[in-house]
Amino acid sequence: MKRTMINRMMGAAFLFLLVFSQAYAQTDPLPSWNDGPAKKAIVEFVKTTTEKGSAKFVASEARIATFDQDGTTWVEQPMYTQVIYCLERVPAVVKAKPDLAKVEPFKTVLSGNREAMAKFTMPDLEMILAATLTGMSVDEFSAEAKKWLEAARDSRWKRPYTELTYLPMQEVLKYLRANGYKTYIVTGGGQDFVRVYSERVYGIPPEQVVGSAGGTSYRYAKDGKPFLTKEPKLLLNNNNAGKPEGIHLMIGRRPYAAFGNSTGDKQMLEYTQAGDGARLAMLVLHDDAKREYAYGPAQGLPNTKVGTFTQALYDEAKKKSWTVISMKNDWKSIFSFDK
Amino acid sequence: MKRTMINRMMGAAFLFLLVFSQAYAQTDPLPSWNDGPAKKAIVEFVKTTTEKGSAKFVASEARIATFDQDGTTWVEQPMYTQVIYCLERVPAVVKAKPDLAKVEPFKTVLSGNREAMAKFTMPDLEMILAATLTGMSVDEFSAEAKKWLEAARDSRWKRPYTELTYLPMQEVLKYLRANGYKTYIVTGGGQDFVRVYSERVYGIPPEQVVGSAGGTSYRYAKDGKPFLTKEPKLLLNNNNAGKPEGIHLMIGRRPYAAFGNSTGDKQMLEYTQAGDGARLAMLVLHDDAKREYAYGPAQGLPNTKVGTFTQALYDEAKKKSWTVISMKNDWKSIFSFDK
Repeated sequence: MKRTMINRMMGAAFLFLLVFSQAYAQTDPLPSWNDGPAKKAIVEFVKTTTEKGSAKFVASEARIATFDQDGTTWVEQPMYTQVIYCLERVPAVVKAKPDLAKVEPFKTVLSGNREAMAKFTMPDLEMILAATLTGMSVDEFSAEAKKWLEAARDSRWKRPYTELTYLPMQEVLKYLRANGYKTYIVTGGGQDFVRVYSERVYGIPPEQVVGSAGGTSYRYAKDGKPFLTKEPKLLLNNNNAGKPEGIHLMIGRRPYAAFGNSTGDKQMLEYTQAGDGARLAMLVLHDDAKREYAYGPAQGLPNTKVGTFTQALYDEAKKKSWTVISMKNDWKSIFSFDK
Repeated sequence: MKRTMINRMMGAAFLFLLVFSQAYAQTDPLPSWNDGPAKKAIVEFVKTTTEKGSAKFVASEARIATFDQDGTTWVEQPMYTQVIYCLERVPAVVKAKPDLAKVEPFKTVLSGNREAMAKFTMPDLEMILAATLTGMSVDEFSAEAKKWLEAARDSRWKRPYTELTYLPMQEVLKYLRANGYKTYIVTGGGQDFVRVYSERVYGIPPEQVVGSAGGTSYRYAKDGKPFLTKEPKLLLNNNNAGKPEGIHLMIGRRPYAAFGNSTGDKQMLEYTQAGDGARLAMLVLHDDAKREYAYGPAQGLPNTKVGTFTQALYDEAKKKSWTVISMKNDWKSIFSFDK
């Protein structure tokens, strides 16, 4: 066949795919969302930034969307999953270093006294994190975390933690990607931890996970083979102001859409909205005690140690026209297993 | 039309595209390369890792290739482009802070004495880098660097620095991408600097540039608008052992192919090769004084301050079966403008 003919046929095939993928897209991309301001804000944002001829059209390579994880794409109560991982790793760490058994906070962790553990201070938690997340090779860490995630079950639903992702947010991730957006997790949690399952659970590859990150050291094994060890040195505290800083370091451009659920996400939402053109800033409010949890003083809901949705954050959201997502009112289903 | 029929037609269209895109791929993907061991190594690596049924097939999401920049994808002589940028920024910095005019190393830079500048020590250079690369917002920095890159011309070819990229390496970038590889720049140079032009020059988006990176600070302007400032605090020294460490931080997986040209790339190549399956590790040897430059003691060529290809690196390359690319023998053309 001649080149020109091949070109023409390829053109026709592309056109065909284009037309029918658009026809497919006519079906509701967010079936787990009730009609309301939150769903409307998402759909309008996508249309405004991706439809040809739109005054606020965004070039496909600039389409970046960032998602906090804990409390935004999956459950964060009664404790962050990664903190549970660290606590459950303590016995193995103590086995390797028996002296730790006599020292706090490890002594309390080994006692199993949940009430005492709930009183841990930040320095206590930092000691536990350093002991359980560093000092091994990055490959050993990934293998351990993967093994734990497969076996561990949460206390309420008795399911793997990785099943406790919010179906409506999974739909938003897919909808944005189908419209050319590159989706990122931007979490205060550990970058290496989330990278273990991000591809499988969210369809987000490891390189699109930005999280709190420690340094590594390049070493050689006895056989000369190089490896990286995880060091107890914090490079990036990816919370609050650390979120836009982490986004600059790891992505290098400002997101067009950002999703969070707590004061730790405030700066990421501000930074996203401060760009020109159409920007989407959304906060998940946990107001559904029946299907998930209800917390956050913004709605007179009980305060908790994690995921603080304060009155100040609520007021700022209203002032800046960020959209607050009510789990109770905006979400038809919360999890894929409760549909 | 019924769903099944649409599905069938879409399947046919996909098949058509697949077959003809493969037919297209039969044309030489590396026309600027002479036949020889280097070209052969690249083509065989791509076939081995991407052809269905290959024992060393690599899943498309794991296909990562990393490229050093200075001396690997563009010219690094007589000085790194970014160092020239910093030196040429000194007058503007001194204008804003006149006291610097009386202080070394700024005094020497202002004198224009190139011989004296060539003798700068590392602390001298660090002072210049800190003064010219930090203290402004990230947006101001990008705008300045962009403006400079448009106006500046190199001393030998009298062309914009961004035209001094190696055509054969541009072909490798495109060839790898056409085969599902995600291509990254992994440079000892400044991450923010390279990100200004990476998309336009290499087709590599900012988020796929890993480089030496300083910290930023999240601040508020008087009108309440948030912005990021560049701080004189080094987060990542992306050279030597810093390259695999930077790759872990920013990408989170081991590359399958890595390209470098100096001792600063040794660890990246080692780390790449230490993975299982097929891996490609290549070093560019600058042995073409006529068309570009000839340097590196490995071939009895003169040593220079930048891009050291030592005898030790050469011996290691031979021992570990890394492929050394001879610019003189392997490359038909060096630049797109000298074809």
